[in-house]
Amino acid sequence: MPLRAIIFDAYGTLFDVYSMGVLAERLFPGQGKTLAEMWRDKQIEYTRLRTLSNTYKPFWEVTQDALVFCCRKLGLPLTLEAQNMMLGQYAKLQPFPESLEVLRELKGKGMRLAILSNGNPEMLDAVVESAGMKDVFHHVLSVDPVRKFKTAPEAYQLGTDVLGIPAKDVVFVSSNCWDICGAAWYGYPTFWVNRSGAPLEELGVTPHGEGTSLSDLRDFVRQRNEAAVPGSQ
Amino acid sequence: MPLRAIIFDAYGTLFDVYSMGVLAERLFPGQGKTLAEMWRDKQIEYTRLRTLSNTYKPFWEVTQDALVFCCRKLGLPLTLEAQNMMLGQYAKLQPFPESLEVLRELKGKGMRLAILSNGNPEMLDAVVESAGMKDVFHHVLSVDPVRKFKTAPEAYQLGTDVLGIPAKDVVFVSSNCWDICGAAWYGYPTFWVNRSGAPLEELGVTPHGEGTSLSDLRDFVRQRNEAAVPGSQ
Repeated sequence: MPLRAIIFDAYGTLFDVYSMGVLAERLFPGQGKTLAEMWRDKQIEYTRLRTLSNTYKPFWEVTQDALVFCCRKLGLPLTLEAQNMMLGQYAKLQPFPESLEVLRELKGKGMRLAILSNGNPEMLDAVVESAGMKDVFHHVLSVDPVRKFKTAPEAYQLGTDVLGIPAKDVVFVSSNCWDICGAAWYGYPTFWVNRSGAPLEELGVTPHGEGTSLSDLRDFVRQRNEAAVPGSQ
Repeated sequence: MPLRAIIFDAYGTLFDVYSMGVLAERLFPGQGKTLAEMWRDKQIEYTRLRTLSNTYKPFWEVTQDALVFCCRKLGLPLTLEAQNMMLGQYAKLQPFPESLEVLRELKGKGMRLAILSNGNPEMLDAVVESAGMKDVFHHVLSVDPVRKFKTAPEAYQLGTDVLGIPAKDVVFVSSNCWDICGAAWYGYPTFWVNRSGAPLEELGVTPHGEGTSLSDLRDFVRQRNEAAVPGSQ
């Protein structure tokens, strides 16, 4: 069977989350890069701990907690105004330059497109709207209804439940190798957008496809679907 | 009720895991500290991902995977000999200097003492034996039987199951703030051995006690138990 749908991670995959560093640098000169990276790591750590321990909180709140922790750790004075600016930036994240064109082209070829993200619904709706992508996606899915963050299988299952397609006929796309592993363990074919040339995690998973941008995904999908239809080129 | 038992995390709490850095520095001059810290972070990350995704592997293997990843990421050539030396070091970790004396004293006061660790049983038995602590602990518990690493509640439940004591009459001791949070979420009173003066995680948990070494734990237990027995001083 050819691939019939594509599920995308959001932050870091479609939207450039490290651009937060620019704002962070403006607010805390000399510390922006350190803060932005530590914040992202801590945010992910908190999603995992809260999922492991069944103490779910929406991503917005987890993200805020992580910011407060990181500023305390780095000794940076976090005013309410700065906090609101940093969190507010999440609604205005820029998509990677190729994102919109590739998405439109894939949709034009009949693929069903979805986002599946740790972000809570309000955050996702805001960033999708701001990036002009509202008409591109058939589904914008948050893990919020299952109250578990990735890589819990229940999170990935939201995709197959909503699409009504077996996991094997969907490709899951993420820039995070751990997310690729979680999706592969659930049963999706995977495409790793390895934007930074990171080494593969030692988790026993090899993605079905890999590239440096979403443009490479376009080629991957074409090749997979041509191979699935005998005689076509 | 007074506290009747104490459960200790092992690595970083009783045994100094960052002493791995010394060996790492000998094997990879100039990169030892970076490698040891990255290895520890990656090891913990893999335990969480594998627990979230129900893909448990014993800690020994996870630790090996993490080492392989980190050396690849840092561009360090990892020979089989170096790998065996690094992993073998886990069996010979030094206890923190105050560990043994404090443990003996607490045991002398009638406390039941246990270790509850992500480590698999062989690893734990080896390091406890090597540190001369075999006669000190009533129980050396690995999460291995439940095939979930901390902070899964099932991991912490091993302590109450084996001790046969309600969680509220036990104190859980760890140097890792995330471990303190997991234990508190499960229901244990907690004592954080905050050896490095780290800020408290923003996870809504405040430990019942905090100190910079196990010596402070001794005072905490005495005060708690004096307060629990009216009229005693």
